[in-house]
Amino acid sequence: MIQYETRFNVRYAETDQMKFVHHSNYIVWFEMGRIGLMDSAGISYAGLEKQGYLMPVLEVGARYLRPARFGDELTMKTILPQAPGAKIKFEYQIFNAKEDLLCTGFSLHSFMNRNDRAIKPPKEFLLKFKEYF
Amino acid sequence: MIQYETRFNVRYAETDQMKFVHHSNYIVWFEMGRIGLMDSAGISYAGLEKQGYLMPVLEVGARYLRPARFGDELTMKTILPQAPGAKIKFEYQIFNAKEDLLCTGFSLHSFMNRNDRAIKPPKEFLLKFKEYF
Amino acid sequence: MIQYETRFNVRYAETDQMKFVHHSNYIVWFEMGRIGLMDSAGISYAGLEKQGYLMPVLEVGARYLRPARFGDELTMKTILPQAPGAKIKFEYQIFNAKEDLLCTGFSLHSFMNRNDRAIKPPKEFLLKFKEYF
Amino acid sequence: MIQYETRFNVRYAETDQMKFVHHSNYIVWFEMGRIGLMDSAGISYAGLEKQGYLMPVLEVGARYLRPARFGDELTMKTILPQAPGAKIKFEYQIFNAKEDLLCTGFSLHSFMNRNDRAIKPPKEFLLKFKEYF
Repeated sequence: MIQYETRFNVRYAETDQMKFVHHSNYIVWFEMGRIGLMDSAGISYAGLEKQGYLMPVLEVGARYLRPARFGDELTMKTILPQAPGAKIKFEYQIFNAKEDLLCTGFSLHSFMNRNDRAIKPPKEFLLKFKEYF
Repeated sequence: MIQYETRFNVRYAETDQMKFVHHSNYIVWFEMGRIGLMDSAGISYAGLEKQGYLMPVLEVGARYLRPARFGDELTMKTILPQAPGAKIKFEYQIFNAKEDLLCTGFSLHSFMNRNDRAIKPPKEFLLKFKEYF
Repeated sequence: MIQYETRFNVRYAETDQMKFVHHSNYIVWFEMGRIGLMDSAGISYAGLEKQGYLMPVLEVGARYLRPARFGDELTMKTILPQAPGAKIKFEYQIFNAKEDLLCTGFSLHSFMNRNDRAIKPPKEFLLKFKEYF
Repeated sequence: MIQYETRFNVRYAETDQMKFVHHSNYIVWFEMGRIGLMDSAGISYAGLEKQGYLMPVLEVGARYLRPARFGDELTMKTILPQAPGAKIKFEYQIFNAKEDLLCTGFSLHSFMNRNDRAIKPPKEFLLKFKEYF
């Protein structure tokens, strides 16, 4: 298992007229989390794309337990529960400063090339993560 | 079952550097679909909010089958599979102009008042939908 | 002068906790307007990009006169005041259903290739627009 | 003059298919900058809203000099060039890690209450800023 923490503040533009964060923004935050986790493991997602590897989202899910509000300082835990294979799953937990759990979620990914064809994950990607499992 | 169709074009701003629509936008589109479905059944979500009823998202999920691209004319089917009770579930299917299924998803909701307390759905809301089931 | 009208409804996700539309969304709407105007003149912006022409934004400005709210049916007038040359300027006016003017704005553009180099507008682009002036 | 610096990384979701940041996101960043500047001067914008003061945007403008890209570490300078009166103007400059200037902009604001009526800025707001000029 690899775990990575991202800290960030809720942006005003992320709220909606319900007066808390619009639920679609958590999906954007999840992305920040997995990119951060990969980075912490020595894998630059920007670098992968430059080599022609894209990692699209196959599936995403989120459960909203409590609202996040403008100005909240949030902590997101991103977890890679298993060594990645053809598919890669990330899990997410978002907490406020009082350590209330606000949201849990996951995303599922695979690799694709610039011609929209499914391809195997880059070897370097698999090797880097193998060390952790 | 109630079914409602929304037609719309992909906005340029909804793409990302993968050259297709960023996955978080589908979650925004789902919202357009359920608001349209409610409207078609005679329920104004804007009106509900004015009366103090909020319908937050408890859960959301999406599976991405094929990418949507800038300029694509999309059709979203929003489905209310069951008469709403304390919880309300919507399902979504998004198709391109060739009728390829691009994405399926769901969202789960309940009602809340302006003080963040869970409340029963408004009677009018339940009655309007009862006619269809 | 070319003028083009776009009609659309405010999305819930476009509001913020001030209870009206977040000002950044008007900038996204302007883009829908100019793409629609080009389309109406026989120019597909998606097509231009496929040929390697990008039309980045050099400058943008907006004045907000009255707020737009969730559910509002808006009409945007996009205006090309002059035949495009090396630079292309669009102007925008957004009205609600009561024809109140909510926002005016403009954007300034030029052409660029995939290597980030400034290039002349495609001939076809200039010719199509010449007819109108 | 007050000056405040915000550092942040470009999010993947902020890019578009032109392969750099969509221009509307800079407008969202400007907002982060002015909220940070107010915070640094002892004024919580969240607190102002709780007291019934809203600070809507009257006008916004941006000039895009060079593109920002995914993963770029950006620095935004937010400047309050003059003591705020009935209107408040902020200026913005965004730099990449090489200190290239990517974007300049401004926003103009006034105060409003929850009934959409123009009101004077809160005294505390004016006093806090007076110290700096």
